[in-house]
Amino acid sequence: MTSSAPTPAYRRLSVEERRSQLLEAALTLFAHRAPEDVSLDDVAEAAGVSRPLVYRYFPGGKQQLYEAALRSAAEELRNCFDEPRDGPLVPRLSRALDRYLAFVDEHDAGFSALLQGGSVVETSRTTATVDGVRRAAAEHILSHLEVTDPGLRLRMTVRMWITAVEAASLIWLDEGKQPPVEELRDWLVDQFVAVLSVTATRDPQTAALAESLSADG
Amino acid sequence: MTSSAPTPAYRRLSVEERRSQLLEAALTLFAHRAPEDVSLDDVAEAAGVSRPLVYRYFPGGKQQLYEAALRSAAEELRNCFDEPRDGPLVPRLSRALDRYLAFVDEHDAGFSALLQGGSVVETSRTTATVDGVRRAAAEHILSHLEVTDPGLRLRMTVRMWITAVEAASLIWLDEGKQPPVEELRDWLVDQFVAVLSVTATRDPQTAALAESLSADG
Repeated sequence: MTSSAPTPAYRRLSVEERRSQLLEAALTLFAHRAPEDVSLDDVAEAAGVSRPLVYRYFPGGKQQLYEAALRSAAEELRNCFDEPRDGPLVPRLSRALDRYLAFVDEHDAGFSALLQGGSVVETSRTTATVDGVRRAAAEHILSHLEVTDPGLRLRMTVRMWITAVEAASLIWLDEGKQPPVEELRDWLVDQFVAVLSVTATRDPQTAALAESLSADG
Repeated sequence: MTSSAPTPAYRRLSVEERRSQLLEAALTLFAHRAPEDVSLDDVAEAAGVSRPLVYRYFPGGKQQLYEAALRSAAEELRNCFDEPRDGPLVPRLSRALDRYLAFVDEHDAGFSALLQGGSVVETSRTTATVDGVRRAAAEHILSHLEVTDPGLRLRMTVRMWITAVEAASLIWLDEGKQPPVEELRDWLVDQFVAVLSVTATRDPQTAALAESLSADG
């Protein structure tokens, strides 16, 4: 820890700003490459700083940087689900899906690597971060449906649909982003309404919801 | 490698038989506990052999034993999908699901640990084994549907449903195996028919299938 004079570029940013800048550079790299293919040198280069500076902010190296970038991406993804509680339900779901699919489009390679599992950087902490996003998505949907005490069958329906959306996103990326995003969005919305109707035939709580949903549209 | 006289118990089994016996003991342990909670000593004890003997067959230790047990479970799971190509399609899917859900019931804790990810024994090889089972399930379904050249929308529909079935299995285990397995099976079959109908509205290939499926039932 010698107090050598920092270069002008280093001096301009506060600790928080520098951390954000490094995180942003890392996130951009991790978004478009598998974690295996990103080195700390790449991050340093993308941020225009030295490798030791990256280590000063992230002493845990690539793993720590990856987990921090993932948490920041998870936060961004949660924000996609924010949707005003006005107007009919189906268009609300449609708008939230639009934002979610834009996120998938923007973070393509990183999104695939993360969700396909078996990555070297995958730990119980990264799994917990991803699960937290899934839970947040389910809570958002249930709160828009205005259900305070969702039963097992309704909860399962919502979580199964969220998993199906994830699977669709991965295949969509794999297939060169086909079918077109608007078609994918409408298709996923229609599937939600369809699986809710299936559950409605065996669950009174879901039946009441399905009815108000179709009255809505 | 001294040729000391083996104990009677060791002498009785051939190399292949011994390997199978160890694998079976491991599979039973890994089925009901998270991999973290199974030690080589546990496997040796369950098989009634010494720890060094387990190492002789699986020099890679627990990781190698886990991967071998997983491959053997994957094989068993693939067999669940075998279903004669006779009679209406929906009951065929229903019978295959019955076998699949019995497998999930039997391998509960191991199944959850494996699919929930972030486990210490998870590697790109274990991920590939699980993905192989998913692919086999999709191929089985498409071959029962008698589609030789499935388009993107149909493939996506089948894969999304398979993922939803996996999610349902995990929640089902988490919820103390509720709802009852027969209800879960019928629910999943109904969902398959429903999502196929949704895809049918935007894909001629799926539309033809959905029609023959409803003519069937």
